Amino acid sequence: MNSGEIGVRFADSDLGPDATRAYFGTLNQVEAAEVLASIADDARVREVLLWLPREQSGAILASIEPGRAAGVIAGLPSDERADLLAAIDEDPRAAIQALLPAAARRDAARLLAYPPDTAGGLMETEFVAYPAGASVRDAIRDLRSNQKKYSVIGVQYVYLLDEENRLFGVAPLRDLMLAAEDSLLSSLVTRTPATVRDTTSLHDVAATFDEHPFLALPVVDESGVMLGVISRADATEGEQEEAEDDYRLSQGIVGGEELRSMPVGIRLRRRSAWLGVNLLLCLGGAAIVAIHRDTLAKAIVVAAVLPVISATSGNAAMQAAAVTIRELTLGVIDPAAWRRVLAHELMLAALMALPLGCAVGLLSNLWGAPWTVGAAVGIAMALNAIIAIGIGATCPLLLRRLSVDPALASGPIATTLADVTGFALTLTLVAMAT
Amino acid sequence: MNSGEIGVRFADSDLGPDATRAYFGTLNQVEAAEVLASIADDARVREVLLWLPREQSGAILASIEPGRAAGVIAGLPSDERADLLAAIDEDPRAAIQALLPAAARRDAARLLAYPPDTAGGLMETEFVAYPAGASVRDAIRDLRSNQKKYSVIGVQYVYLLDEENRLFGVAPLRDLMLAAEDSLLSSLVTRTPATVRDTTSLHDVAATFDEHPFLALPVVDESGVMLGVISRADATEGEQEEAEDDYRLSQGIVGGEELRSMPVGIRLRRRSAWLGVNLLLCLGGAAIVAIHRDTLAKAIVVAAVLPVISATSGNAAMQAAAVTIRELTLGVIDPAAWRRVLAHELMLAALMALPLGCAVGLLSNLWGAPWTVGAAVGIAMALNAIIAIGIGATCPLLLRRLSVDPALASGPIATTLADVTGFALTLTLVAMAT
Repeated sequence: MNSGEIGVRFADSDLGPDATRAYFGTLNQVEAAEVLASIADDARVREVLLWLPREQSGAILASIEPGRAAGVIAGLPSDERADLLAAIDEDPRAAIQALLPAAARRDAARLLAYPPDTAGGLMETEFVAYPAGASVRDAIRDLRSNQKKYSVIGVQYVYLLDEENRLFGVAPLRDLMLAAEDSLLSSLVTRTPATVRDTTSLHDVAATFDEHPFLALPVVDESGVMLGVISRADATEGEQEEAEDDYRLSQGIVGGEELRSMPVGIRLRRRSAWLGVNLLLCLGGAAIVAIHRDTLAKAIVVAAVLPVISATSGNAAMQAAAVTIRELTLGVIDPAAWRRVLAHELMLAALMALPLGCAVGLLSNLWGAPWTVGAAVGIAMALNAIIAIGIGATCPLLLRRLSVDPALASGPIATTLADVTGFALTLTLVAMAT
Repeated sequence: MNSGEIGVRFADSDLGPDATRAYFGTLNQVEAAEVLASIADDARVREVLLWLPREQSGAILASIEPGRAAGVIAGLPSDERADLLAAIDEDPRAAIQALLPAAARRDAARLLAYPPDTAGGLMETEFVAYPAGASVRDAIRDLRSNQKKYSVIGVQYVYLLDEENRLFGVAPLRDLMLAAEDSLLSSLVTRTPATVRDTTSLHDVAATFDEHPFLALPVVDESGVMLGVISRADATEGEQEEAEDDYRLSQGIVGGEELRSMPVGIRLRRRSAWLGVNLLLCLGGAAIVAIHRDTLAKAIVVAAVLPVISATSGNAAMQAAAVTIRELTLGVIDPAAWRRVLAHELMLAALMALPLGCAVGLLSNLWGAPWTVGAAVGIAMALNAIIAIGIGATCPLLLRRLSVDPALASGPIATTLADVTGFALTLTLVAMAT
């Protein structure tokens, strides 16, 4: 592919977000970096980088000339700047950071130090603040003379700070408009406004937005010094990313988003790591079968039923785990409440297990197993469904308390345990029946 | 549980969102409705309903007295009102809708008619609009006299409409503040502003927000009449809900969010429906084994390896499907691009298949299979991993083109096909080797 020529064409084009994403989706990393580098206008480069998936933008920035990358990144709002830097591999990131203007460099280093799911990691450091003694006229004069700059950061509120930059009060921009010009800002602002600490978790930030109708919240450090602003849309976006993480992890995509434009080496390493762990885990179930091979030889049809028991128990465990994980996310259960979860789940499990057991038992008989073997297999299926659902429902709670992400680990753990108990139960009962 | 007494205590309490969700998580639907009905203040009831998971709020509203429910719902912003009504079962919803004030009833009926993932389904119908001839002074006078009402709906922009309520222009509130009082609004507004149609999909609304820095977009009908406003935070929240749907569907939670406070009947029906379909699907693989039981009897150790091949191929297919589903969501691939997806995936698949095949083949030998059987099993594992990855990667594209949700159907379909081919390959090759 002659990407240089295509690059020139893209640079001259005026493609919107959808067409841009689709176009870059057809390029590998080297081609994408060439195309981007061929765009002369930094503002257009920034726009394109914000449209592309973050992993792709990070990879592109790592591949273009560090000076250019630093210039592009320096012009972004502080939160986007930190997010993009975080998506770049460590070595190129250090090179780019070193070339940033001093203020942007300090700012980026500070934001990157926060975990991404905290107020500090989500905030913008641009906001409009005045000293506590300013008048409405002072503020309006400043807003008017910086109109262009402020329109980029989308000002909603003005903040009043004391001499130590501690937050003194907040007023919505709308109130300024409706106030007399010679009044003092301090007469308009809400004192002791709702704030969040820089270390506050995304979950608690979202809860604060639930409680208050504000469009944005000021972020302060432990002594009350104002550090930045987090908007409602930023918090929701953080929650969207968490939900996307849950999905990816539950499907075995680890180490961040995978795009097919990424180098094969990275994709291979990440996918194999997870598959390898799961292969090791399913040897547990396989070992049980290998041990009981004499039993199996006596009732070979059971070999056809084992994968059914494994898959069905695994699916039932996965459903139960998903409900627990969602309830944890929604905040309707406490991670310590395993007794209540189990009580709610076991009745349902028993009701689901009965028809499953009958179906699998009858199936074995249809395939020629004697009725005693059918009964053994059916009972094993029913008991194992109950066990699997119990493990699935409670295992995310334990993982959460151990600070392991339940979306990643619940599936493999619950299905492995369900396999081991399922094969052991089935083959033990069949041994008794033959 | 004496919920009446607890209800009184909750009604007197001042619990925040987290504590409220946790408390209601311990109640069943009947208790939750009793507690909510015992709160005298409608505003507090509204607050609590917006904090709880939407399914729970819907169930509670269905259980309390319809007149009270209508009064509570009537006081909500239009978009929240429609969302909550949509979460109530059909019969109680009709009863509540009939008791709403005429304007709210018409409004709700209109919003409920839109699919939830369109601009119409996401918009609020409250906005601040003036006739095309109004002056800045007129607007400021109106804003001042309705300050309280407008502060609830969080006004960002004022809209100028012509005589037929068609959108004429938009100005950010900030610009009004900085303008001379006797100028005409029409001199401030942006003509032909960015708008979205009521029927525009959430995906396209999000793309429009990607292209423009606006905090909110006006929603218009086909003749340009302004219907409502959709905020950036509303659009992001819509995307968050889509990501949560993907997670739930991929784990077999169908028919909407499941909470353990829901009646057992509903939970049983929904979970069993999905498990039942999957049980039927996995009979395909089981039937292959049942047919080949004579082969299996000759090399019984293969029975221990079959679940490993099934699980590993299924996991590999799931990973590939998840990458495709994410790429579709991110808009970096076209649903028609199956050739490119396959080309990108098959090289990776071959690299992953080799070590998997070796591992499974060696394992069989360790468990006592002759080397010919080990080789047959290993080759079957490797080939089937490639097939499974190919099916997993392309099946979401086909499902999307058939308008079936890939997050729901890809998993069961890909793992079923992987089982059938896996068992057939293994047992055919083993038959040749024994």
